[in-house]
Amino acid sequence: MWTVIYLLPMTMHAMAQIDYESVKNTRDELLRQELGMMLGHDIVLSDSELKANEVIMGLKYAELDHAFRQPQLFNLSKHFFEYKDEVKSTKLFKLIQKMPKGAVLHAHDTGLLSPDYIVQLTYLDNLYVSFDKGDVNFMFAKESPITSNGKKWQLMKNARQSSGDIEKFDTELRKHFTIVIDNPSEVYTDVNSVWRYFQQFFITTGPLMTYKPVWEKYFYDTLKALRDDNIMYIEIRSILPELYDLDGEIYDAVATAHCYKKVVDQFMVDYPDFFGAKLIYAPLRLVDVNTLKEYIKIAKELKKQLPDFLAGFDLVGQEDLGVPTKDFLLELTEASKDLDYFFHAGETNWYGTSSDENLVDAIVLNTKRIGHAFAINKHPLLLNEIKKRGIALEVNVVSNIVLKLVDDVRNHPLASFLAQDLPVVLSSDDPGVWEAEPLSHDFYVAFLGAASRHADLKLLKKLALNSLYYSTYDNKDKLVHEFEIRWTKFIDEVVREQWRS
Amino acid sequence: MWTVIYLLPMTMHAMAQIDYESVKNTRDELLRQELGMMLGHDIVLSDSELKANEVIMGLKYAELDHAFRQPQLFNLSKHFFEYKDEVKSTKLFKLIQKMPKGAVLHAHDTGLLSPDYIVQLTYLDNLYVSFDKGDVNFMFAKESPITSNGKKWQLMKNARQSSGDIEKFDTELRKHFTIVIDNPSEVYTDVNSVWRYFQQFFITTGPLMTYKPVWEKYFYDTLKALRDDNIMYIEIRSILPELYDLDGEIYDAVATAHCYKKVVDQFMVDYPDFFGAKLIYAPLRLVDVNTLKEYIKIAKELKKQLPDFLAGFDLVGQEDLGVPTKDFLLELTEASKDLDYFFHAGETNWYGTSSDENLVDAIVLNTKRIGHAFAINKHPLLLNEIKKRGIALEVNVVSNIVLKLVDDVRNHPLASFLAQDLPVVLSSDDPGVWEAEPLSHDFYVAFLGAASRHADLKLLKKLALNSLYYSTYDNKDKLVHEFEIRWTKFIDEVVREQWRS
Repeated sequence: MWTVIYLLPMTMHAMAQIDYESVKNTRDELLRQELGMMLGHDIVLSDSELKANEVIMGLKYAELDHAFRQPQLFNLSKHFFEYKDEVKSTKLFKLIQKMPKGAVLHAHDTGLLSPDYIVQLTYLDNLYVSFDKGDVNFMFAKESPITSNGKKWQLMKNARQSSGDIEKFDTELRKHFTIVIDNPSEVYTDVNSVWRYFQQFFITTGPLMTYKPVWEKYFYDTLKALRDDNIMYIEIRSILPELYDLDGEIYDAVATAHCYKKVVDQFMVDYPDFFGAKLIYAPLRLVDVNTLKEYIKIAKELKKQLPDFLAGFDLVGQEDLGVPTKDFLLELTEASKDLDYFFHAGETNWYGTSSDENLVDAIVLNTKRIGHAFAINKHPLLLNEIKKRGIALEVNVVSNIVLKLVDDVRNHPLASFLAQDLPVVLSSDDPGVWEAEPLSHDFYVAFLGAASRHADLKLLKKLALNSLYYSTYDNKDKLVHEFEIRWTKFIDEVVREQWRS
Repeated sequence: MWTVIYLLPMTMHAMAQIDYESVKNTRDELLRQELGMMLGHDIVLSDSELKANEVIMGLKYAELDHAFRQPQLFNLSKHFFEYKDEVKSTKLFKLIQKMPKGAVLHAHDTGLLSPDYIVQLTYLDNLYVSFDKGDVNFMFAKESPITSNGKKWQLMKNARQSSGDIEKFDTELRKHFTIVIDNPSEVYTDVNSVWRYFQQFFITTGPLMTYKPVWEKYFYDTLKALRDDNIMYIEIRSILPELYDLDGEIYDAVATAHCYKKVVDQFMVDYPDFFGAKLIYAPLRLVDVNTLKEYIKIAKELKKQLPDFLAGFDLVGQEDLGVPTKDFLLELTEASKDLDYFFHAGETNWYGTSSDENLVDAIVLNTKRIGHAFAINKHPLLLNEIKKRGIALEVNVVSNIVLKLVDDVRNHPLASFLAQDLPVVLSSDDPGVWEAEPLSHDFYVAFLGAASRHADLKLLKKLALNSLYYSTYDNKDKLVHEFEIRWTKFIDEVVREQWRS
């Protein structure tokens, strides 16, 4: 922001005598200059892009100008659960879905695919289930498990068949694989309560997902879903849980990372137009220093064994209830010689608290990007630092709404980030858990709900390019080159389609 | 924000080799510097103030640290209606109420006093009432009014007595004098719907309030309520409605302004420790250019007749649905030679719309202060301008919550304004309509809910001082001097009380 002084029109300095022409000019000039410094300002649109832009802005203006006068009709100020399906049939959403969106740089483990997909996973052989006071427990095994807690296990296949109504059975089961409900404002009363449900998703699905064949299948299908949503590449954060198989084998964090790598390699053989994946090892932050040291040891081992696959290290879990990063400052400073950081920080609206101040720790630890950084607008010096150091902000608007940091996306700090031309990357966190598309919903909501009414195709292209630029992909020229080819094809399609209609 | 570059620690520039000590120092230094640039940083606390600060911060920390771990218990992220009464019994609220808070610079007409007060007004003689499908209409008259719309009028006194249950009658009546309800989230579904109820308050109470004796009494009692809430001075915005009396006399806008002046003069005789009032003529913005020209004519006449009493000019009403300021740019530019402006602007979360861009018009028209400026964080160049030109932002947190710009005060842009050391003045808009104290609730909510956990007595004092500094009071030295005396007395009381307990 401090770089803009020289942009100020000279007319502003001598306004003792104001006349209409100069007032009008200053007004228009200030607005023009603000538009000219917004994220995406440096993108120059080609003639085709200008035509496509007209189509896109026509759709955007129609939505916004209607809602401006009748805000009760504005989908995006309702709860995400209310509009997420409805908007998919809009032309603007479909365009955004078709648009090459670059990379997903902030997403977690098994949080990407829909509950319907997870229901299908429960049709796999050797899955046992036990129902326990509203909870459901899963385990893959050769024979019915015997567990010390006295749970009654049965084959999933049998449980489903004996239910008498498979459709109803699956509908009930599906509820465990999503946090989408009809009455979110009654159930999810505060950030902690929605986080409890969110974490329960991972607890419930854990033994289903950590069965090694499922883990691999899930990731393979995640890559497929990303590709279908017109994404080229992903950096996946994972806690790297222990995996298991039918033979009683247990696979540790390093082995789990190798599974990921194996899946990516296979996927790249099957879909050579995809640009692959890297891993950010991101274990839980609510631990003591000794556990943190173990984490670092694992991360270093991963670096040794999978130097091209490991992007770096992070810590995950609700920041407000976790251990502040500063408690690990010594260990993380030492390890920073060997590891690149991609820290979550400032995913909070508690200003001046330890979770708020995780932002400064992330920065002084030379983080490459910051996950969320929701609170950074309250920190003018830290804003300077991230700009100066080129630290990207991984913004996940839908996640922040669903996890109750902000109710109305128009109040999301992303608007101000874009206005200040901060290095923003849009991502989606755990879109499957709230039944969003891998990245399209986040682009749609950001473009229509958070960005300025004036923000156009330049912003969309810049956000996609930023996700490539701030990735750790090794051959960025190639990545961007391929993106440009796909982008041009997309633009041509938009223009052609417009001519047809 | 651009002024802070030189503050950056030199250690930041050479971090290729990072070691724990320098990382730790840089971290602490960045946080220290951010605290050192926050609004109020230039206040130096005396020994007594430091002791009082300990008391205040003890109360603040206790509230916040409790709520940080259990956010469901945090009053301030609930709806204002839920906690407004409960918090009054807290020690922190009582301290803030006792604290000299300076001036109210943003408040409207008959929006300051409680519904209970208005119920008492209906006990005045000569008041007629008519009930009409849930609506209630008032009129003061010598004899029962005859109105062309066929309304059945009766003396209020008779209506109340014949109701059989005066308490119930008054309880029902009271509902017309407040927008506080039990289920705001169901009834006030969007910004337009809550504004409709808000405006209905003024429509319903209009004929009650514009009876000249009531108008004068209401303002007199407003000044009294301000004084009781430890406020020294007010700049009241008024649409200057036509007043009437029992003799059929009608008083125009200029006469209404004279009424205000007469009341202030009388009040200053009765309470010479108060510092009086000025007027901002602020008629409705949803008008055509010709009406705007009439407004300006009236404003100039006021300036001529009451040069020391008129502070300036503004336009009011919901910005999203009103006429954008730019439509009046020519007329307002011309009139700016004669009038000082105090424009409402950016009381919206529609980024890039005409109401959002009212901010730039206010600035180029040389507004002295901006009412609300809620959206200005999305405008980095305009932030520079207001800082450079010393334009104060009149922030009304409770109003913005009640009128549905933002649900959770922690997401109010005030947090970021304070962090950037913007010239903020806290005010209360229409506190009576939502049953808040004249200014204490706004201070309490801002201090506990929007400001940093670290923000302390320096912020409170600075906010109070800002309200004096950015006022148009003629003898500011005297005003500030008297404030300092009262402030010192307050501090001594806090410290003494602490010793006692």
